[in-house]
Amino acid sequence: MAAIEKTPEITKEHMRRTLYPTLALLAGLALPCSAADPLPSWNDGASKKAVVGFVERVTKAGSPAFVPPAERIAVFDNDGTLWSEQPMYVQLAFALDRVKALAPEHPEWKTTEPFAAALAGDLKAVAASGEKGLLDLGTATHAGMTTDEFAAIATAWLAKARHPRFGRPYTEAVYQPMLELLAFLRANGFKTYVVSGGGVEMVRAFSEKVYGIPPEQVVGSTIATEYRVKDGVPSIVRLPRIDFIDDKAGKPVAIQKFIGRRPILAFGNSDGDFQMLEWTTSGPGPRLGLILRHDDAEREYAYDRESHFGRLDEALDAAPKRGWQVVSMKEEWKTVFPAARPGASAASR
Amino acid sequence: MAAIEKTPEITKEHMRRTLYPTLALLAGLALPCSAADPLPSWNDGASKKAVVGFVERVTKAGSPAFVPPAERIAVFDNDGTLWSEQPMYVQLAFALDRVKALAPEHPEWKTTEPFAAALAGDLKAVAASGEKGLLDLGTATHAGMTTDEFAAIATAWLAKARHPRFGRPYTEAVYQPMLELLAFLRANGFKTYVVSGGGVEMVRAFSEKVYGIPPEQVVGSTIATEYRVKDGVPSIVRLPRIDFIDDKAGKPVAIQKFIGRRPILAFGNSDGDFQMLEWTTSGPGPRLGLILRHDDAEREYAYDRESHFGRLDEALDAAPKRGWQVVSMKEEWKTVFPAARPGASAASR
Repeated sequence: MAAIEKTPEITKEHMRRTLYPTLALLAGLALPCSAADPLPSWNDGASKKAVVGFVERVTKAGSPAFVPPAERIAVFDNDGTLWSEQPMYVQLAFALDRVKALAPEHPEWKTTEPFAAALAGDLKAVAASGEKGLLDLGTATHAGMTTDEFAAIATAWLAKARHPRFGRPYTEAVYQPMLELLAFLRANGFKTYVVSGGGVEMVRAFSEKVYGIPPEQVVGSTIATEYRVKDGVPSIVRLPRIDFIDDKAGKPVAIQKFIGRRPILAFGNSDGDFQMLEWTTSGPGPRLGLILRHDDAEREYAYDRESHFGRLDEALDAAPKRGWQVVSMKEEWKTVFPAARPGASAASR
Repeated sequence: MAAIEKTPEITKEHMRRTLYPTLALLAGLALPCSAADPLPSWNDGASKKAVVGFVERVTKAGSPAFVPPAERIAVFDNDGTLWSEQPMYVQLAFALDRVKALAPEHPEWKTTEPFAAALAGDLKAVAASGEKGLLDLGTATHAGMTTDEFAAIATAWLAKARHPRFGRPYTEAVYQPMLELLAFLRANGFKTYVVSGGGVEMVRAFSEKVYGIPPEQVVGSTIATEYRVKDGVPSIVRLPRIDFIDDKAGKPVAIQKFIGRRPILAFGNSDGDFQMLEWTTSGPGPRLGLILRHDDAEREYAYDRESHFGRLDEALDAAPKRGWQVVSMKEEWKTVFPAARPGASAASR
C-alpha cells in the first residue's frame, strides 16, 4: 500500500507496459472462440460497422435504442439484393424457358408476338412488345395451373436452369454476404422477410432452403387466384390477371398488409426499393436502411442509373441525405457467391 | 430364480396386487407435475380427445404422422370462434359507435341512410339498407385515416367499449378454452394464425395481447390503402374501397397468398369457414378440422342455421361426412370466458 503510494507513476507505467498488453492479447486470443465473426465475407468497412453497430444497439437490454424481439422486422428485396438480377431477372429467364417448353401446345405462338420473339431468343423484340407483351408472356407462363402445380414447375426449373455467365444454378447465384447477414439478424432475434417485386410463389419455391426464410415470410407480386373444387378435390387456381405489383410504393403497402408492422431494417438495391427504404427509415427509434451497389463488373456486374433491370438512380442520390448505407460490392465483399455445391456445374467462384 | 419358476401364479398375483397399484399410484402422483392438463377448461370429451390425440400424432418423432414444426400451421376464424359474435359482430358495434362519434362533423348524416338509422340505433333499418348501405357505413368509419391512426382509434375503442350482455370489454369476451388451445398448439411447435372475415387491422389491434398472435399472423379482410408522402412524412392511407373479403372461398385464397402453406388444423364456427376447413382437411397426411357449435344460451348464445351473424348450416351438415369435429360449447367447455380482470366492469363469469 505504502509502496504503491510512493511510486504511482511506476505502477501505472508497469500496467501500461505489461498488464494491458497481456489483457489485450488474452482478449484477442479469446475472440475467435467467444465471438467468431458472424459476417466473414464482409470486409471491416463502413457497412459492416453500420450493421453490427445497429444490431448491438437494438439488442442491448436497457439501452434507449433497445427494440423488443417481436418488433425486430428486417425486410430484403430479392432481385439484385439477395441474388443476381443480371443479365435479366431470373423470372424472365423462367418465362422464356416456359414459352419454349409450352410451344408444342401453342402452334399459334410461332406467328404471335411476343411469343415468336421469345422462341427466337430475341430479347430486344420481346422488350419492344411493351407492357402488354410482357404481361401476355407472364400470364401465359405463370397462370392456368394450380399453385401446387406452379410450385412443382418452378422447383423443377430452378433445379436444372443455370445462370448464363456463372454456369451455376440461380439458387447458387445468391450472395454469400447476404446469407450471412440474414443468419446474423435471425441469431439476434430478428424476423427476416423477402419483399420482392418478383412473383411470390417463385420466391417461395426456394426461399426456405436457400435463405432460411419460410414461405409465410415472403411478400411479393401476385396474380389473381381462385378457389375451385372439382370432383370433390379443392385447389387454388392461378388466373391470367395481375392482382398486385409489389414494387415502388407497392412495397410499403404490402409490408403493412402482410406484416402489419413497420420494419426497422430494410435492404434494397434499386429505385424499386426507394419507398420501402423510406417507410422503414422514417419511423421513430433506431432504423437502418441499406443499398447494395453493383460496382463489381469483374466478379458480378456493374450497373446503376442506366440499367434496364435494377435501375438505381433516385435512391442513390437520396442515400447520403437520408443516412442510407451504400454497400459497395467491390470494396466491401470478400466473396460474392457461396462455394459451389458438389455436382452443380459451377464455372465461377 | 427357482422359487419364481415354482410359483409363477403367486408372483403374477403379487405383482397385480402390490407392484402395479404402487406404480399406478406413483404415476398418478407424478402426473400433476410432469404433464399438467394443458386444456383445463375442456371436459374430457370427444373434442379434447381429438385435439390432444392429433397433436400427439403429428409431434411424435419417427411416427408416420409426424409433421415438421415448420409445417404445423393452425388457422382460426375469429368472430364466433375466438370471441363472441353476438348480438352482432364486434366490428359492426365499432362502426355504429364511430358513426355517433363522427356525427358532429357530418350533419348530413341525420337525413342520409344508413347513417340516420345508425344514429337512431335502429339496427333493422341499418340492415335494410342492404349491401350498399353497409359498405357506406364501413368505409365512412374505417377509411380516410392512416393505418397508424386507425390502430389508435380501434385500440381506444376496444379499451372502453363493453359487451352489451356480459358487461366486459370485448377483448375479455374471448373464449378461455380457445386461449388454452392456442397456447397448447404453440407449445407443441405450431404457428397459430387468425384468418378472419373481419378487418385485418381491427384484429391486429388486440391479437398479440389477447391471443398471443402477432400482427404478421393475422389474415383478414382489407380495404385498399395507398402510400403517401406529405411534407416528407410517409404514411399509409386507408381508402374508401374494399380490397379483399376474407370469407368463404376467400379464406383459402388468402391463406395461400399470406401464408403460402396449407394448414394442418383449422377451427371455425360458421359456413364462412367451410372452404377453409375443406382446404385444410383435404390435404395429404394428418389433418384436423373443428367447428365450434354455439349451443349454450345460458352461458353465451345458442344459434346456428337461422342466425344473421355466424350462420352454421352447410358446414354442420358436412361435418360428420368429412370428419370435422363439432365442439359443443355447452357440453365440452367447463368455462366460457376468462376470469374478469380487476377494474373491468364485468357482470358475468
